[in-house]
Amino acid sequence: MIKIAIFGFGAVGQGVAEVLLNKRDALRRLIGDFRVVAITDSKGGIADENGVDLLKALEIKRKRKRLPEGITTLDVINSLDFDVCIEATVTNIEHGEPGLTHIKECLKRGVDVITSNKGPLVVAYRELADLADRKDAKLMFEATVGGAMPIIKLVKNDLAGNEIYAIKGILNGTCNYILSRMEKEKLSYDQILAEAKELGIAEADPTYDVEGIDAAAKLVIIANSLMDMDVKFEDVERIGITNITPEAFEVAMDKGYTIRLIAEVDKVERILRVSPRLIPIQHPLAISGTLNAALIKTDLAGDIVVVGKGAGSKETASAIISDLIELYRC
Amino acid sequence: MIKIAIFGFGAVGQGVAEVLLNKRDALRRLIGDFRVVAITDSKGGIADENGVDLLKALEIKRKRKRLPEGITTLDVINSLDFDVCIEATVTNIEHGEPGLTHIKECLKRGVDVITSNKGPLVVAYRELADLADRKDAKLMFEATVGGAMPIIKLVKNDLAGNEIYAIKGILNGTCNYILSRMEKEKLSYDQILAEAKELGIAEADPTYDVEGIDAAAKLVIIANSLMDMDVKFEDVERIGITNITPEAFEVAMDKGYTIRLIAEVDKVERILRVSPRLIPIQHPLAISGTLNAALIKTDLAGDIVVVGKGAGSKETASAIISDLIELYRC
Repeated sequence: MIKIAIFGFGAVGQGVAEVLLNKRDALRRLIGDFRVVAITDSKGGIADENGVDLLKALEIKRKRKRLPEGITTLDVINSLDFDVCIEATVTNIEHGEPGLTHIKECLKRGVDVITSNKGPLVVAYRELADLADRKDAKLMFEATVGGAMPIIKLVKNDLAGNEIYAIKGILNGTCNYILSRMEKEKLSYDQILAEAKELGIAEADPTYDVEGIDAAAKLVIIANSLMDMDVKFEDVERIGITNITPEAFEVAMDKGYTIRLIAEVDKVERILRVSPRLIPIQHPLAISGTLNAALIKTDLAGDIVVVGKGAGSKETASAIISDLIELYRC
Repeated sequence: MIKIAIFGFGAVGQGVAEVLLNKRDALRRLIGDFRVVAITDSKGGIADENGVDLLKALEIKRKRKRLPEGITTLDVINSLDFDVCIEATVTNIEHGEPGLTHIKECLKRGVDVITSNKGPLVVAYRELADLADRKDAKLMFEATVGGAMPIIKLVKNDLAGNEIYAIKGILNGTCNYILSRMEKEKLSYDQILAEAKELGIAEADPTYDVEGIDAAAKLVIIANSLMDMDVKFEDVERIGITNITPEAFEVAMDKGYTIRLIAEVDKVERILRVSPRLIPIQHPLAISGTLNAALIKTDLAGDIVVVGKGAGSKETASAIISDLIELYRC
């Protein structure tokens, strides 16, 4: 019996709960019996060693109510017996909290961790990976980069044995939406940003996305976890997309190029950078909409490209569930 | 100490031997100590329980000489102790031999199998998978589909937990080369085929590729192993590329489409087919050259696309090595 705790019950946490509920039988065939013994968020939580009622927890959120107060994530970690936590609290890339403490405390107890939270990994990947090693616990984080687009396990497992020379990709769907719409509509950045906000693709304050901060955070995770580097967020050369004009697109398109925000780590060329780049219009990274994509340069396999949905509750849950199955497959 | 036997010492077998030799130290860190205890081909072989000299074996082939006569693959299976065979003999999709017997005999003895040989899987996937299960042996076959393009492990592991509705892809690099050249040069099929033969991209008798036989074989493997189906080669509706004219391309291109040979299995639409299809020019499957690509339709992750080199000695070795690491990672 695998006992699961879910920390953070926003879109991602709820998405995971829905999959665990709706696919219970299929998942049991893959990983054996499991139950969720706790769900917490920043305001409260529910815990039951015999299994939390997922449907009821989801209902509470559907009615925009709160989980019961009086129980904290640290209470759960300190007092409940569970095998794996799904850490889906909000990302903070400056101090990594509250996820960083959750992850550390779980790993210290030998509890496996699956996280969708970039913050702790951006702040302390090496420390967390070492801690997991020492405690013989697993730290899984497919959901931190590219949503449903598999890149962590793809590189670690499917391309195992390859030397990874470089990874470059489109790691932020909001920027890609804005740029591909600017390409198509020949409108200004501000006009398209307004459209993106209306559609819920850009946040009211879009800084985190459009300044390349989100992409840079993911790039740090890629560099440290897939390319055996030890870089910090501050090491990333970073330019956002706010200054790109319709005229720039026009010049680019005339020559058969488009413009995309590319996150790029290259061991050979010593590049660690997020910046708008010219991309040939038929290049595999010249994708449109909110998709994410990555091009992985290797010694044996050559270049591999992967494209997928970079965000979304169900899509992020997909990445988390694949981590869960990797951990516990019968 | 992992003991490896290599059956088939053509381009793929030699590619694997080269990687095992050149990456020995890196691989040892991943899977622990290993040695190759036998290499055989259709004419002979070498075996040494203390480890075959890989450099010497490769030298023999480089000088276009033969491996010593007097030892057969079945001798090795019957008399030598080894943990895993790398089955890289020539594909025959009618009877699967000689690979089918090699794989069966290994699995029966509880020996793990990594194969690049499509034949045995096309002829008897279910039987082999069941045999492996019963004998608690592993059957790995990333190299049978798409060369270095990860698709088997990507779907089985990275997208685990997803329901796979459909997979469609470009699974034959020769056809894709011919079609993308026809698109670009506006020349006839025969003219481009002649070019492809000259470049070594098409065989003297190109039937196996251009009639869609190779793509259909791969599609059967995909359907049976990744989508839990039980289909035979004969079940694949199949049309090759030999009748495609420059005029067809012209009409397609006028409307923003190109033509590609698409292998497609769709559980919802009940499709199992290899045929030339119209593809929007900016579609992720509208790739050029000898690349392979696959689009995987899932319930949670949405659509995932992967693109990579579909053939080549080093590239196929990459897939085999990733299987080896999956089996024995420390």
